[in-house]
Amino acid sequence: MNAARDLPPLKVAIAGLGTVGAGTLRVLADQATLLTARAGRPLVVSAVSARDRTRDRGVDLSSFAWFDDPVEMAKTADVDVVVELIGGSDGPAKAVCEAALASGRHVVTANKALLAHHGATLAEQAEAQGLGLLYEAAVAGGIPIIKAMREGLAANDIHALHGILNGTCNYILTTMRETGRDFEDVLSEAQELGYAEADPTFDIDGIDAAHKLAILVSLAYRVPVDLEALSIQGIRHISALDIDFANELGYRIKLLGMAHRRAGGGIEQRVSPVMVPLNAPLAHVDGVYNAVVTEGDFVGRSVFEGRGAGAGPTASAVVADLVDIARGNITPVFGVPVGDLKALPKEKPEGHVGRYYVRLMVVDRPGVFAEVAAALRDEKVSMETIVQRARDPGETVPVVMTLHDTEEGAMTRALERIGAIDAMVEPPRVIRIETF
Amino acid sequence: MNAARDLPPLKVAIAGLGTVGAGTLRVLADQATLLTARAGRPLVVSAVSARDRTRDRGVDLSSFAWFDDPVEMAKTADVDVVVELIGGSDGPAKAVCEAALASGRHVVTANKALLAHHGATLAEQAEAQGLGLLYEAAVAGGIPIIKAMREGLAANDIHALHGILNGTCNYILTTMRETGRDFEDVLSEAQELGYAEADPTFDIDGIDAAHKLAILVSLAYRVPVDLEALSIQGIRHISALDIDFANELGYRIKLLGMAHRRAGGGIEQRVSPVMVPLNAPLAHVDGVYNAVVTEGDFVGRSVFEGRGAGAGPTASAVVADLVDIARGNITPVFGVPVGDLKALPKEKPEGHVGRYYVRLMVVDRPGVFAEVAAALRDEKVSMETIVQRARDPGETVPVVMTLHDTEEGAMTRALERIGAIDAMVEPPRVIRIETF
Repeated sequence: MNAARDLPPLKVAIAGLGTVGAGTLRVLADQATLLTARAGRPLVVSAVSARDRTRDRGVDLSSFAWFDDPVEMAKTADVDVVVELIGGSDGPAKAVCEAALASGRHVVTANKALLAHHGATLAEQAEAQGLGLLYEAAVAGGIPIIKAMREGLAANDIHALHGILNGTCNYILTTMRETGRDFEDVLSEAQELGYAEADPTFDIDGIDAAHKLAILVSLAYRVPVDLEALSIQGIRHISALDIDFANELGYRIKLLGMAHRRAGGGIEQRVSPVMVPLNAPLAHVDGVYNAVVTEGDFVGRSVFEGRGAGAGPTASAVVADLVDIARGNITPVFGVPVGDLKALPKEKPEGHVGRYYVRLMVVDRPGVFAEVAAALRDEKVSMETIVQRARDPGETVPVVMTLHDTEEGAMTRALERIGAIDAMVEPPRVIRIETF
Repeated sequence: MNAARDLPPLKVAIAGLGTVGAGTLRVLADQATLLTARAGRPLVVSAVSARDRTRDRGVDLSSFAWFDDPVEMAKTADVDVVVELIGGSDGPAKAVCEAALASGRHVVTANKALLAHHGATLAEQAEAQGLGLLYEAAVAGGIPIIKAMREGLAANDIHALHGILNGTCNYILTTMRETGRDFEDVLSEAQELGYAEADPTFDIDGIDAAHKLAILVSLAYRVPVDLEALSIQGIRHISALDIDFANELGYRIKLLGMAHRRAGGGIEQRVSPVMVPLNAPLAHVDGVYNAVVTEGDFVGRSVFEGRGAGAGPTASAVVADLVDIARGNITPVFGVPVGDLKALPKEKPEGHVGRYYVRLMVVDRPGVFAEVAAALRDEKVSMETIVQRARDPGETVPVVMTLHDTEEGAMTRALERIGAIDAMVEPPRVIRIETF
């Protein structure tokens, strides 16, 4: 550490000056003294690049070299690290990271899409040159979960993990529950409040959560990041009615990313809405918070919770990575050298055995129940509870069942048959139940 | 990282082969391949020392050099790191750490008492020589909270923190609530089950939690560890009646370590039982689990939860520290160089402003309430709620009040006067209420 005190400043270039980029500049300025003490050397921004030089970002850019082209900056600026905050799985973000690594510069990125699509390749490039590729900000910015899995829990095999990985979805589901309003309505409000994007597809269809899960799975199981191995379902089809029934049954509905090792050695990976009981660690993680639960062989269960996004938490994560680089704490990108990552068998969702919530919308007529019961019986699916509300002959009523442990494939076949009964007004809705 | 792959093994000595020492040997053996991949070099145990060479620990010691004297081992064994698992704030534990550092060897320790009493001095010794003094296992073994505060949240000033830091107390309080049994009864059972020591003083009087809090406070506020700055209260006086009233009022009673920066710049640090509402992050952390909540200026609130003790979680933390040392990740012991730690004004508990639960045991007679109310009024303490149960004239009844925000000093004066009323059968019981 004494030696480190004589080290020259760590020179930083920042590509992308949106909310997170401007936040990073602010943290580096406000916390300069603390960060120098922690890192043993000053962290100094030398160069920046963004689309619009003139926009007011609330920070003074005049002391930094300006580059119109971030790739040019990554290649030629006199810096030790390039921070990539452009976003997107390809295009300039990827080009910037590749150029920086090719030019011998460390990379810090908040880009989960990039890592989910090209993580293994970029890791290979970084490690071949002994460079760091750090990405604490890419998953749950306010939670130092990457460092926890890569270093803090280093002694463990993680056999299962699950988490609330998308703050937008958690905000929408929380607000639906608290207000009784329906999905579209709450989504519009979230867009107005800036909690959801104008095009909310990535968030509400589970893609953003899938990117993050793919990264955590690579760290946990030491497999190359593989987005194709995931099954993904979002929250568009969750209705106020489902939220209501969940409450009645003693559950909360959360969009979770989940992975666990099946008995055969393969990894089941899935993003989907899940009903969790009120005593589950994540049942009370509400609003814009994220949380991750890991199960390690020696350490047991660990739970990490914090803000998922926003300028402050994300910049906090970016700057922690910069301190690590300044101190020379460069770990293998996914916890072990990329050559040691080994693909494992992919497990199909149909093989999942678990409990399910099923909601049918039925025009009540004699004999419907018998047909439903027969379809379940024929696939050896057994009901745990059944709830039917108000019943006027000929009126559409919701019928809600919870199913005992059953193989997802068998349940899907039973529900196909049930969905074809003429009294069904819409396709059966299914939500997994997990007790964790 | 490529360079690291050519590094020689990290040679480790272990002083103390109790549960945690044996667990550490087991993790190092079971996870050898993984740890070599993570660290870039093998972690190899070379020497061990314990009181009894012949005891069966379920691990084969024959390949390690044996030392009867752990200090001798720390000085002379051919190792890079000494792991101190002897325990105790002074005596051999301290001598081992000092000898190891004086001989140029890194130290890993699980010893909170040692760090709480001598942390700053040992840190000075380590840092003067560029050596690591790592202690992830000393606070909440199953939670990588030291790394999180020192590295993961490095960009933040932490302005407040609180946590469940003692698994024994949390187990006792949880069991009292679940079973309705009284303190002494549950303590005896915990001793039989091995969850509490034969002499449980350190745990139930809050001393162990205070040691851990003092360490976290040093990391959070960059002050030298100072056990004298803490006020400490344990759980001996918590009765089944208080647990019962807490439930009725919508709270859980937890033994918490808490610190926050007061407006004047000083730090209030305290270990005491606290009533927290059911929606607080720690209300549902039960049994042997620990949890820590931090409030950082950029990251906001973070919550960390995991097992507090046990061979697996503690060994997991020790081994994570060894991987850090093997990789050369040596941070300043308390997050910044020890010379940058600065004492801050100590804040007295009497200055605390907050809400309180007060239980009086009263022989009911006319006029008692008027005397209680007058004492409160004279100190400008105002009641929020009051609960009195069954009432037979002349019988002892519990009277429970919750108080609005009040200065602890004023409340204490009021309660002294109330305690002196002849109808009081025992001294008033007070528990802080915190909403966090």
